[in-house]
Order: sequence, then C-alpha cells, then structure tokens
Amino acid sequence: MKLEIASYFCRQTVLLAAALTTALPFTAAAQLNRDVAPYETTAPGTSAPSYSVTASAPGDNVSATFLLKDGKPFYTVDYKNKKVVNASGMGFELFNAPDLLDGFVVEGKELSSHDDTWQPVWGENSSIRNHYNELLVKLRQPSTDRRLDIRFRIYDDGVGFRYEFPQQQTMPYIVVKEEKTQFAMTGDHTAWWIPGDYDTQEYDYTESRLSEIGNRFKNAVSYNASQTTFSPTSVQTSLQMKTDDGLYINLHEAALVDYSAMHLNLNDSTLIFQSWLTPDAQGRKGYLQAPTQSPWRTVMVSDDARDMLRSDLILNLNEPCIYEDTSWIKPVKYMGVWWEMITGKSTWAYTSDLPSVRLGETDYTKVKPNGRHGANNENVKRYIDFAAKHGFDQLLVEGWNIGWEDWVGHSKDYVFDFVTPYPDFDIDKLNRYAHDKGIKLMMHHETSSSARNYERHLQAAYDLMDRYGYNAVKSGYVGDILPRGEHHYGQWMNNHYLYAVKEAAKHHIMVNAHEAVRPTGLCRTYPNLVGNESARGTEFHAMGGSKVNHTTILPFTRLQGGPMDYTPGLFVMDISEINPNNKSHANVTLANQLGLYVTMYSPLQMAADLPENYEKFPDAFQFIKDVAVDWDKSLYLEAEPGRYITAARKAKGTDDWFIGNTTGTEPHTSVISLDFLDPDRKYEAVIYADAKNADYHTNPQAYTISRKKVDSKTRLKLKTVPGGGFAISIRPVK
Amino acid sequence: MKLEIASYFCRQTVLLAAALTTALPFTAAAQLNRDVAPYETTAPGTSAPSYSVTASAPGDNVSATFLLKDGKPFYTVDYKNKKVVNASGMGFELFNAPDLLDGFVVEGKELSSHDDTWQPVWGENSSIRNHYNELLVKLRQPSTDRRLDIRFRIYDDGVGFRYEFPQQQTMPYIVVKEEKTQFAMTGDHTAWWIPGDYDTQEYDYTESRLSEIGNRFKNAVSYNASQTTFSPTSVQTSLQMKTDDGLYINLHEAALVDYSAMHLNLNDSTLIFQSWLTPDAQGRKGYLQAPTQSPWRTVMVSDDARDMLRSDLILNLNEPCIYEDTSWIKPVKYMGVWWEMITGKSTWAYTSDLPSVRLGETDYTKVKPNGRHGANNENVKRYIDFAAKHGFDQLLVEGWNIGWEDWVGHSKDYVFDFVTPYPDFDIDKLNRYAHDKGIKLMMHHETSSSARNYERHLQAAYDLMDRYGYNAVKSGYVGDILPRGEHHYGQWMNNHYLYAVKEAAKHHIMVNAHEAVRPTGLCRTYPNLVGNESARGTEFHAMGGSKVNHTTILPFTRLQGGPMDYTPGLFVMDISEINPNNKSHANVTLANQLGLYVTMYSPLQMAADLPENYEKFPDAFQFIKDVAVDWDKSLYLEAEPGRYITAARKAKGTDDWFIGNTTGTEPHTSVISLDFLDPDRKYEAVIYADAKNADYHTNPQAYTISRKKVDSKTRLKLKTVPGGGFAISIRPVK
Repeated sequence: MKLEIASYFCRQTVLLAAALTTALPFTAAAQLNRDVAPYETTAPGTSAPSYSVTASAPGDNVSATFLLKDGKPFYTVDYKNKKVVNASGMGFELFNAPDLLDGFVVEGKELSSHDDTWQPVWGENSSIRNHYNELLVKLRQPSTDRRLDIRFRIYDDGVGFRYEFPQQQTMPYIVVKEEKTQFAMTGDHTAWWIPGDYDTQEYDYTESRLSEIGNRFKNAVSYNASQTTFSPTSVQTSLQMKTDDGLYINLHEAALVDYSAMHLNLNDSTLIFQSWLTPDAQGRKGYLQAPTQSPWRTVMVSDDARDMLRSDLILNLNEPCIYEDTSWIKPVKYMGVWWEMITGKSTWAYTSDLPSVRLGETDYTKVKPNGRHGANNENVKRYIDFAAKHGFDQLLVEGWNIGWEDWVGHSKDYVFDFVTPYPDFDIDKLNRYAHDKGIKLMMHHETSSSARNYERHLQAAYDLMDRYGYNAVKSGYVGDILPRGEHHYGQWMNNHYLYAVKEAAKHHIMVNAHEAVRPTGLCRTYPNLVGNESARGTEFHAMGGSKVNHTTILPFTRLQGGPMDYTPGLFVMDISEINPNNKSHANVTLANQLGLYVTMYSPLQMAADLPENYEKFPDAFQFIKDVAVDWDKSLYLEAEPGRYITAARKAKGTDDWFIGNTTGTEPHTSVISLDFLDPDRKYEAVIYADAKNADYHTNPQAYTISRKKVDSKTRLKLKTVPGGGFAISIRPVK
Repeated sequence: MKLEIASYFCRQTVLLAAALTTALPFTAAAQLNRDVAPYETTAPGTSAPSYSVTASAPGDNVSATFLLKDGKPFYTVDYKNKKVVNASGMGFELFNAPDLLDGFVVEGKELSSHDDTWQPVWGENSSIRNHYNELLVKLRQPSTDRRLDIRFRIYDDGVGFRYEFPQQQTMPYIVVKEEKTQFAMTGDHTAWWIPGDYDTQEYDYTESRLSEIGNRFKNAVSYNASQTTFSPTSVQTSLQMKTDDGLYINLHEAALVDYSAMHLNLNDSTLIFQSWLTPDAQGRKGYLQAPTQSPWRTVMVSDDARDMLRSDLILNLNEPCIYEDTSWIKPVKYMGVWWEMITGKSTWAYTSDLPSVRLGETDYTKVKPNGRHGANNENVKRYIDFAAKHGFDQLLVEGWNIGWEDWVGHSKDYVFDFVTPYPDFDIDKLNRYAHDKGIKLMMHHETSSSARNYERHLQAAYDLMDRYGYNAVKSGYVGDILPRGEHHYGQWMNNHYLYAVKEAAKHHIMVNAHEAVRPTGLCRTYPNLVGNESARGTEFHAMGGSKVNHTTILPFTRLQGGPMDYTPGLFVMDISEINPNNKSHANVTLANQLGLYVTMYSPLQMAADLPENYEKFPDAFQFIKDVAVDWDKSLYLEAEPGRYITAARKAKGTDDWFIGNTTGTEPHTSVISLDFLDPDRKYEAVIYADAKNADYHTNPQAYTISRKKVDSKTRLKLKTVPGGGFAISIRPVK
C-alpha cells in the first residue's frame, strides 16, 4: 500500500454556518422547535437552542447541525433540505462519575476541510477519495470542569461523528454505563434489520416498518450456538432504511477500536433509536482512558440506493494503514475441505468414541477413527489436486488439529492447541504437496471462543504457520465467550480480535475471523484483516436455509464495514445429494451463486462446493475460475435493498470486466448499459444466466451460458428468477 | 529434586473397618444419630445410616468414617476416640444438571495403604515421609446413572479427602453451582480467622469463639485495594481452631488446581462450616471436565499445637515434582529497593506530572522526573554494594519499568509491558554491575491484576529476564482483576497463576507471586513457586500496623500451604524516621524480627529494611547475614497459636542450628532444651534477645546479644516481651 499521510488543509472557503441564535439568524431553529427529541425521560422542550452550528458537505447536499439546548447537546442531519435525523441527544451515562449528558457550555469550535486520495492494498477501487468538511465542537461541563469534544465529518454521502475525551485532570478514566447517542428518525421507515444480539449476527434479515420491529422481533431470532438478545426493539448495525419519499439511510459505526459494539434500540412510539453498547461480564459498557475517542457513528444518506453501496465513508473514517510493508497481503481465491463437514458428509473430529478429550492426555494414535474425518491425507490431496488444476490460490482445511471431539458447547478452556495435527493429517507432506502444485494451504484456528486459550497459543500457532508456509488463517469464535460472561461484541473481545490481527501482521499472516465483531472499516488500517464472517453466511443453506433475498441485503448492511467471507459457489442446492441425512435446500439458483462473486465484494473468495459438484458443471465453474478477486474500479449499475443488486467491476491491472447480479424474491429484468467499457476496444462477453425455467427450489441448476461480442455501446437485457442472478465476464478481444 | 514416584503397596494389615449397619455392628451409629448434620434446609434425621466405613491412620489415633444415610453422603473425623468433625454432608449443587447431593448408592470401596519418603527441592526438612491409609468410596446416583468417587487419606496428623469425577458418558462436564462440603464442629471452638473474601487475604487475624465470628466480622475487615466479602460468618482457610479440651484442628485444602478456592461459611447456631467456593464473573463456581477431581479438603488434628506446624499433610497430598531438572531452583536471601517505596520515602513512578500514561505513547524522556524515583541507577548501585558486601544472593528492584504513574485503581488493561525500563534505570549496566559483585537482581512484575495483559507479555518478559540474567521474579496482583468480574481466588485466576509458574519453569525462573491465591502445597509439584504473599505481610507495618501477635498465627494458618514472602527484618519501627509523613509504627521488637527468619519458614527470605537502617545495628544485622534459608531438619520446640512459636532448624548440609521465637501480646518465657544437638560436639551460641526494657511500641530496638558455649545437654531460658522474640545461632566449635 502506498501510504499517504492525510494532509489536512483548512480551506477558508469551506461551507460552514455558525450561529449563536441569540445574535444571528439560525435556519434550523424553527425546525428544531418541532423536532427536538431529548432523552426519553424528558418531554421535548420548546425553548430555542442556546447554540447551534451547521456544517455542510463539500457537495452541499448533506449537512449536520450541532445544537446545545438547555445545556444538552443534540445533532441533526439534513439531505437536500430534508431532515434525515431529527434533533437527537448525545452523551454518556457514567459509572461512579456524573453523567456527560447535560450542563454543557460550548467553549469553542473548529472548522476545517479535507481532500485527499489514498490507495487501498486491496479493494473495490484502486484509489479512494476522502473529501469532507469537519466541525469540531468543544464542550465543557462547568459543574465538573470536564471537557468533551464532538467531531463531525460531513461527506457528500453522509455524516460521521464521534466523541473525543481530551486528556484532563478531571477525567483521566471513564467507565461507561451507556452511550446515549440518539438517531431520531423522521418517519416510520422501511428497515432491513437483524435482532440486536451481543453474541451473534447470523440472522436472516427482516424487512419491516420501524414500528413493526417489536412485533416481529421474536420471529426474527433463530438458533445460534451463542446468542444473547436484550431488547425486543433492538437491531444491529449497519442498519439500512428507506423512507417513504425515497431516501436511503444507513446507520453504522466506523473504527471500532477498544470499545464495545453499538446496537440500536428503538422507541417505537417516538421512532428514536438509542445507542445500546455491548456490556461486559459486569454489565458495564466501556473502560476508557483519556485522551481517547468513541468510534465514529455514521449516517449515510442518498436518494439513490446505489450510493449506499458506492460509499467509502466507513473506510475513510478509519485511520490510514499502519503497516510500512504490505507486499505480503494478497487477495485469495480458495477452496476448502469444509463444505463436506458443514453438510454433515464428513466430520471435523477424528473419533466418535470419546465422551470428551483432553489435549496432551488423549492419545489419538490409540483411539478408533470414525472413518469420516474430512481432513485426512488422501482427501486433502484430492482437493489440492483439484484446486491447483483450476487455478485456485489456496485450500482451507478445517478439522486438521486435535480437539474437535468436544469442541463446542462445553465452556471448555483448553479446547485446542492449534499446533497438533490429527494422526491422519501429515502437515509437512501436505504443505509440500500443495506448494509443489503452486498453491498454499490455508490455516484454520477455531478458538471455540476460548479467547485466553487462543492468546496463550497464538505465537506457537503463528510460528507453525511460518514453518510450513501458511500465510492466511481463518479463525473462528463459535459458542459462548471465555472469559465467561463476556460477549462477542464487547470491548474485551474487540480488543482480542484486533490483537490477533496485529500479532498476525508480525508474521505476515492474513486473517479472516468468523463470528468476530462486525467490521467497521478497520481493514483500511490493518489490511491483513482480509475478511470476516459476522453475518449469516452460505453455511446456513446447509442448516435449514436462508431467506431468498439475503444477498440483496448484505451489501447494504454487513458489507458496509468490510468484506465478508460469504463463501458463495454452491452448485448443488439439494443438500441431501451430499448427505442423505441433511434435508436442507439452498434457496438460490446456480447463476445467482456465480453473480455473488461480483456483487459480494471481498478480496477473499471461496468456491464453497465440493470438487465433485463442480465437475458436474464445468462450463459454469469456468466463471469462478475466471473471476477476479481484486479490482481497479467498481460500479453499481442497479440496486434496491431486498430486491436486486447488479455490480460491474474491472479486474485490477487488466481491461477485463465482470458483472454480477443477485435477485430477491421477485423476478427481475436488468437493462444494462456497457458504457463503462473502453470505447476504443471490442470485447467478448460470456453470460451465465438463469434459464427461463430456473427455480431456486425446484430447478436451481437451470442456467444458460451465451457468448456475445460487446462494446461500450451495448445494452444488455437479462431476466432473473427469484433467488436467481447472473454473471458476465467481459474480456477484450485481442 | 530426587523424584520418587509414589509406590502404592496395599498392605492387608491396613486398619480399616467396613460395616453395613443392617448386618454388622457399627460403632459410630449411636454417635451419628446424635451428630448427623445434613444440609441446613433439612432437619437432622434419626434413622441409621445404610452404609458406613471407617478408615484409620497408620498410628491409629486418627480415623475418618464415610456414611451413606437416606442416599446422602456424610463423613466424620475422630481423634483418639473423640469426635473432631461431626457427621458432615458432602456433594455438589450443579448448574443445568441434577445436584450431586443425594440419591446415592455405594457401588464399592477400595482400601489401601501408602508409605514412602521423598526429598523436596527445598524445605523445612530434607526428606518427608508420606504415610497414610486410603479409602476410596465409589458412589452412583441411579436416577441419573452418574458416578462420584470420594477418596480419603488418613494420616497420623489428619485427614484429606477429595471428590473424584470418573470419566462417564452421563457426566462429561460439570458446572458447579456450589460445593456442599460441611465441616461440622463439635463445639464452640476458639478460632484464629480472617474474613472470607474473594480478593484479599491481607487481614489481621481475629481470635474468637466460632459463635462470635458474625459479631466481629465487620471489625475484622480492613481496607484493601481489592476486596469482596460475601457473608458475615465466612472465614478463609487455613483456619486454625482449638477446642476447650485442648484439641488443635486445622481446616484447609491441598492441591488447588483449576478449581476455585474454598471459603468456609459458618452456621453459627449449628456450628457447621459449609464450603463456599469463589465465584466467577457470572456467579458460577467451577467448570470441570471428567475425569477430574476437587482439591483435597484437609482436617488436621492433634492435642499438641506443635503438630500443626510439623505437619507435612498438605505437601504430601500434592503430586510429586513434575520437573526433571530442578538444579536451577535455589533458596534466596535478598534485599530490595522496596521498603523505601512502601514507607513513602521514594516512589515507584518516575514522574508526577501526568494525569495518566499510555505505554508506547508517553515519552518518558520528555517528562519531568519527580526526583523521588527509587529505582534509579545511583540508588540501585548503592543497594547492590550493600547487599553484595553482606552476602545476599539477590536484590529486588521495584518500579524499574514504565507505567507506574497510574498503575492501580483504574481498571487499566495495558498497564505495564514488563520490558521497558524507566530512563534512569540502566537494566544492562545494573545487571552487569550486580553480577560483577556476585549477586543477581530480582525481577519485579506487578501486573495490576490485568491478567490478560500479563499473559500477552509473559514470554517477552521472561525472555528479557533470560537476556539479563534474572532467575527469580516477584509478581504482584494488586487491585481488581481483569477480566473484570473475576476474582483473585476463582478458577480463572488460579489457572493463570499456575500458568505463569509453569511458563516460568521453561525459562528456569523462580516465582514469588503476591496477592495470588493462598498456597495449597503446589510448591511440591512446582518447586519454582518459591514463595507467595497471600496474607498480611510486613508491609502493613508501614500502613498503620498489624496486630502484635500476627506472626504467632501465620505459621498455623497461611504457612500451611507453602512459604510466605513475609519480608521480615525491620530494624526501625518508627516509620516516620524513614518518611516524616508516615506515622505508622511496626508493632514488633527488633529481636522479634530476627526470630522470624527461623519461625517463618521460607526458601525466600528478605531483609526488608533500608541499608542505612541495618548500618545502625551491625551486630544484630549479623544474624540476618548468618541465618540459613534451606534446612535439613526443623523442630518446633514450643507453639501456641496467637501466643508464641519457637522453632529450631539445622542448616542444610551443616551442623549449624538456628532458633527463633516470635511472641504475641503476652510476655513469654521459653525454656529450651538443646538435646537435638549432636551429643559429641560443642557449639557456640549467639543469642539475640529482647532487652528487659524492650517494648514493641516505646523501645523496640532494645536487644541484647550474648554468646554462650552450649551442647546437647544445655537448657536455655529466654524471656520475651509482647511483640518480641529471640534468635539464636548455634555453630559447632571447630
């Protein structure tokens, strides 16, 4: 990565309006009097704010206003002169200290502007512009002589703001009882939401009005190995909404570092969301030391749904890459000895004879193998042969290490050692075999959420990877957290996930952490964090299925914070074909699965299905082989949450383009102009589409492949079925 | 250490009596009917037990009886045909599983005997006999098909028993809600107790009747940086008691591994103690995986108080040493750059200018030093010179590493890195300087109870020690535990303390952990655990003082589990002489302080006071220089808890003997026969005693030194004052 230190140049032309309402006209004052929404225990006031200041985005469509009213801080967000966020309270409830909610005076403000362009190590685009105007409001609480700053950054596609705690004798440490940031909605918007939960994000999305969340919450909660809901009107971020007048609004956070993840809890009569941080084992929500700051709270807004997907706001609000050398970080296309275990065809465990195992005591050379262990030498070699033959970079092997016999659900501390292979997995030979064929094995570290145990073995585990030539690890946090009482998304574990990423970087190891906290753009700062799960992935198609339109929502929500290891590529949807005992069915068409390699941006893309399933459809498999995993440019051609997404991307350093579509519960017709192609070149397109008779449930493998000469003047018309999609490769004719 | 694998030879002559009361006469049945004390919610039953079995010690004075009555397990302990523990319930309350309290049947029993002798790496005696009879009772709960074994070992000085969970399909994992082991006392004994607390043991002892504990509890609780009391009738182990008819009874535990430390909670009407384990952050008390076992619960008993001190029962109940090579473990006599900080004369911190510091960000080379930093090069050199000149092995230096400015009380996670010295501490030069003078520096790792942070830095910290030639570390756990909600004595932290010891062993490092869990004899298995604090140490004399008779109790209680880094050797009792702002006064005489080097057995002995204070009394200091720290043989000549202890020890590999006395609140006259001396040799004794006008408060430095020719026929008569004592060195005349 080319590291560009952000250059803050304060242009005097920045569009900012500051006003003391006692002295100056204040445009939002009348509006505020109607909209002001203080803490719910307080009736909305009617007095004018004592202070307000508005800052607008460079393009002027978006603005944020800070207000101080009766000593209480508020903010609003506007888009094209429409209110997006009504006056919303800000501040903190603290433990063992007076709250930071009221009694404030404004001591000063700072206005500035910023415009630079940076190059990500990997990403949807090879360069990213970071262009915003900034407003820093300096508050003081005279009764306690404590200072709290609030920094706003206003972009053309939304607003980020955060709390900053300056170093001060009166508040060196802060124990957060609750962050009290409101997001006051202006109407009963349609939302695509998953239930608020301290331990899992692996839920299907529910589309409903905000006011319906409470009624539909219970049905939205499905089983997970670790889950802790806390309020029936709570949702997770990123939350995508749409207003009745066609505004798309997205709430999330950026740069979640050493802080608890934020949920949003709705008062469904006032339609005000209130921040609800993830607690620790004692119910406390944060331990901070000044100088420090909260993550950015983000409000993205546009009247074009595609802007939600195009936005770089979350990445831009994160700090630049901290690594000097990033040459070792590379996008990866991979297969895995994995789907056969997920479907139940084979097992992670080596034996089925023991009620429990104890690492270092259980002698695996003396137990009876169950005969179904997936990660055995012969099977792994078969996968290596296939993956190498078809040009994959890596092969993930799960279940290679001892401990899987009783790995989950027992709150077991010393569950894995991350270094000892099962007797039938020859780590040395298999790595050499893979390397000889030009691919790498991908490491797997399931931690069973025993975080201390993982940290104790982390260096030895990374050393083993160094020794055998692994450069990427998929880690997992299935089950309840140890230390017990902590949650997946609390400060303690968020600190852990980042620790593992930073330690991995010292070994030039890339990390793809499953069941970790939802990403918030930290991959900009730590680009060896090449992936996360943090949502309901493809695996659920082998565990009862996911909603048909799931992948038309994920890019609006989960992917806002960073790439997802979604693991697309199912070619056999009737899971009983793999394991007769598994009656699950994937609610997708084969063409849909191809389209996801383009619509679901990730530098880490898996071909999830079994080699033998790909061998049944070699023509369709060709797309997976061809599609790139790193890009110069990305375009969102069509998008509507829950309905469809069509993306086009130019492969890095080439003139090859790939287009993908995913379609929700309704059939869709895409009309696509290829005007993004080089007007001076001719191309050949290969189009992988749903066949007319395709049906995600009864006929998912019905697809067509057609070839077509195209150029920048071509318009394509493509029809998809529910749960369907299409994929197109477009390459210049030589 | 010479490792002797315990040889179990089952002698058929073992004194065991097994009886089915329906079929056989049962001696304890009548007794039981009166004494039976089931769980407190149940009224004592009157029916006869359905099963009982009694096992006696090799010497026949002590016996333990297991009883099953209405499906409930009980035990009793007898000494010389007197009941020591009345019928007391046993078992567990579990989470998410039926309790293991009743509905049992006896499936079998195993009787055996054991007699061997082992050699500790260091200790009070160069060899230790482990001689006991054993009874294993195998219980099954038919309703759940679960098995629970109870193993008793009966020694001549007491009984140990533990629960064993065999591997079984019906109970692979156990989550403990509470262990329900009772210790039903036979009367309102006098006890020397400290309040039950999950986080500190640093209390003064209260002497009272059992029935008075509740009334005196509140007064017994003094301030500590981390403390969590939970019941006003709770006490800690080891608990020393004395009955009205002169029996000494001690309750403790042995081999506390991966389990929560046990407190005892008294029902002061029934006089039954109930086990009360330390909870985790969620209030649960243990996570076990079968096969496993509880620690041993121990009942020591004798009609001679000295037997309490002589007993090796706790050590014997621990596993043999697990290290092949123990040549690197050596007793240590040391001084420290420490007392000057404890008294407030100097500081651990380098600067006083910052409200908080952040490791890696705070630039210590640019802050203003406070001018009072103890661990500066010049001062450390001064200590090295003094300690080397007077033959000490090591010099502890605290406050050498960055982070002390805000180290405690802020729940700070990244509080120390354990590798970065302050600018005025030249770690390389100072170690070389010390080594050139023939001594080592002793490392200090205060963790501030941030256990994860310590584990993250542990390897680098030990590597640093290796690099500079440190072979011993004093570690500390001041303040509330991180992970927050965990306690100092819970399973989570007990696992941590032992982890640190085992990792240290890989580096040939000896560990002396302060504020860690009370020792339970683990130093037998892990002899690099050379010390613990785990009680109110000498430091409290500079923080308001401790009770006058404190050191006459500690050997009966705290020292049962292993050595204490008590840090004796105060020569200046008026602390204001060191720091005019500190008005504390040590409630001891100088002669008492000398005596402690013998009465408080430890392989790690500090001379706590400042060099300049020792220089004022060079003749008395001679005893500290002379006294050994490792022994061939130890004798307890006199002992009465809270009153006096007189011990004699033969220095390892020599014919030198050292005698020490510590005296409580009443003056004492010791009449000592030296009949333990070699009858064929003549000796010279140097006697350091309280002067007639000595007074711990007004004239503590009044001592006499006399020399005397002695032999095995000599009898010495020595008078001590309250808080006083004496010390004698006896060396053969060449």
